[in-house]
Amino acid sequence: MKFTVDRAVLLKALAHVQSVVERRNTIPILANVLIEATQQGVLRLIATDMEIAVQEEVPGVTVARAGRTTAPAATLYEITRNLPDGARVELDHPGGDAPLALRAGRFATSLTVLPVEDFPSMTEGRLPTSFALKAGVLRDLIDRTKFAISTEETRYYLNGIYMHATTVDGAPVLRAVATDGHRLARVEEPLPEGASGMPGVIIPRKTVNELRKLAEETQEDIALSLSDTKIKFAIGTVTLVSKLIDGTFPEYDRVIPRGNDKVLSVDKKAFSDAVKRVAAISSERSRPVKLSVDRNLLVLSAASPEQGQAQEELDGDVVEYTATPLEIGFQARYLSDITDQIGEKVVFYFADGSAPTIVKDAAKDEALYVLMPMRV
Amino acid sequence: MKFTVDRAVLLKALAHVQSVVERRNTIPILANVLIEATQQGVLRLIATDMEIAVQEEVPGVTVARAGRTTAPAATLYEITRNLPDGARVELDHPGGDAPLALRAGRFATSLTVLPVEDFPSMTEGRLPTSFALKAGVLRDLIDRTKFAISTEETRYYLNGIYMHATTVDGAPVLRAVATDGHRLARVEEPLPEGASGMPGVIIPRKTVNELRKLAEETQEDIALSLSDTKIKFAIGTVTLVSKLIDGTFPEYDRVIPRGNDKVLSVDKKAFSDAVKRVAAISSERSRPVKLSVDRNLLVLSAASPEQGQAQEELDGDVVEYTATPLEIGFQARYLSDITDQIGEKVVFYFADGSAPTIVKDAAKDEALYVLMPMRV
Repeated sequence: MKFTVDRAVLLKALAHVQSVVERRNTIPILANVLIEATQQGVLRLIATDMEIAVQEEVPGVTVARAGRTTAPAATLYEITRNLPDGARVELDHPGGDAPLALRAGRFATSLTVLPVEDFPSMTEGRLPTSFALKAGVLRDLIDRTKFAISTEETRYYLNGIYMHATTVDGAPVLRAVATDGHRLARVEEPLPEGASGMPGVIIPRKTVNELRKLAEETQEDIALSLSDTKIKFAIGTVTLVSKLIDGTFPEYDRVIPRGNDKVLSVDKKAFSDAVKRVAAISSERSRPVKLSVDRNLLVLSAASPEQGQAQEELDGDVVEYTATPLEIGFQARYLSDITDQIGEKVVFYFADGSAPTIVKDAAKDEALYVLMPMRV
Repeated sequence: MKFTVDRAVLLKALAHVQSVVERRNTIPILANVLIEATQQGVLRLIATDMEIAVQEEVPGVTVARAGRTTAPAATLYEITRNLPDGARVELDHPGGDAPLALRAGRFATSLTVLPVEDFPSMTEGRLPTSFALKAGVLRDLIDRTKFAISTEETRYYLNGIYMHATTVDGAPVLRAVATDGHRLARVEEPLPEGASGMPGVIIPRKTVNELRKLAEETQEDIALSLSDTKIKFAIGTVTLVSKLIDGTFPEYDRVIPRGNDKVLSVDKKAFSDAVKRVAAISSERSRPVKLSVDRNLLVLSAASPEQGQAQEELDGDVVEYTATPLEIGFQARYLSDITDQIGEKVVFYFADGSAPTIVKDAAKDEALYVLMPMRV
């Protein structure tokens, strides 16, 4: 294999695939990236951790001799990153166990290779469901739910975003849900063509993170195909194939309360700033903030046995509330995670001071959050 | 005590003093900042870790009732940071054990206080030597030596910058030196008026770091006063008093080689970029880079048993060397630490491949670095 490519092109391609490689690997081949140059002038890079495989195809590469090998992904990325802007990079592998030579100007490196035959290939199998999502829609689905993914490994079926097709008031929707038992995030978009009949799938956290990074750069449609065990995303020249979490997502609809009729709407900026200020009184991570609301007056407060206490009043200028007076406590960080996803106005739907509360963006009916209160 | 101050003024003052407070304190009062408001409209803040005390004086504060107390520094800073731009902040302490009330708009907090009497005051004693340095000069002295400070706690006398007065070719200079046994940095500036006869002092690493931050903001002169146990810096409205390290700095002049007559001069950017590229082959922190030089040709190389090897050639366009051929190895990070402080051209003075090497900036004779080679 021998080909020449611009440093910027190689760097971008390596950046796309290398981040899936785990920094510590007990299996040496998993630290490597598979590099293939075809006679058609295509450079193909693949990296995998056995759960996710990311592949990039770069057309228009000057291939002198087709072939393939595998080399250390992190080292190759680090070296390419440090090459000068505008450099032309030549990669040359004579075959077999011989090292991979990389040359750029008067810099040369020879990298240890491992046999292509040992590189785990991830068979995606048949993926019966296929549909497309706008990149912006996919980013939204991820951003509005990702924070609620559980990190408890024992509840592995909560370690991802649950994506499935359902109907709302008779209209078909694609729904993304995540929960860690303390809060739940549920977002829906009109069901894309081809997605009806899709199985419900749980996309693992790492896949969600890699996908989010890859989706950042593009404005184009992202093509999804899936079975009940694998999912594939085609994002421009990048393909990501991932295993799905083999488990049953809980019947989350049961934990979404109905009939929460005490409605508080409050300016998002005033509210989230006040949460930060009153929560600053305590350095505990799970510090609770108490909301006391009575007729268009919302008092946020927090206390710490060592530091003291803090409170802020938000009044009729930014608050609307006409139901019976209420006191309820929430973890400050959980409130911030949700308000970070909300535009100008937050709406809370309370039942009482100890029951799950619904939070929504006044302007976006398609996203719903459920928050468990804390005793305060 | 009761006074009103702009949020921006309070925030800046707290930022100056709070960073000296250790995050984990077994002595509760050390987590607090002493706050004093005088009848003359001066707000005084003091924080200390028993080794360093930082004091800020803010004039022009609206003081309704003079007095003083102590309150949690980190919490007060965090709360002030989260107050809105342009807010007027009222601090009110009725006295005794009563909490300190802070009000800004409709936000209010009451912070637990501890008695002023328990706050450790740092007596600076008599400081017989006094002189002034331009802020830029002090920053330079720090930046060019700080990286070489030892972190080995057992060699406590190396855990700081050694500053003393001496003469070079009959001219009096102020010299700053730091070494960790592997490299040494020595910088000198013309001796300021008042500094002759000063004792040699070792300024601890934490003091150096706090001082560097405080010196960042100002262009004015910084006043130093010192004895052989304490040093004081007056930086605008901030005063920093620090204990000095009670130890004897080694006779560093002995480790600075004389008669290193093999001179290599090389373009700084070309050299430091090449170091980064070849060092990228190895992920070890102490990875060595080998320099092989023969007549205006410098080859940098590095190898890793797992990854492979890398090399780069720098030729007569950027290299000047006419002495006998030489091979020598250095830790990549140590080379970068030094070249980071160098302008356009680096000059190496070698004796041979296993002896200490001198490194200088071609344009700045006042800074000198010594680097121990590694076997390669």
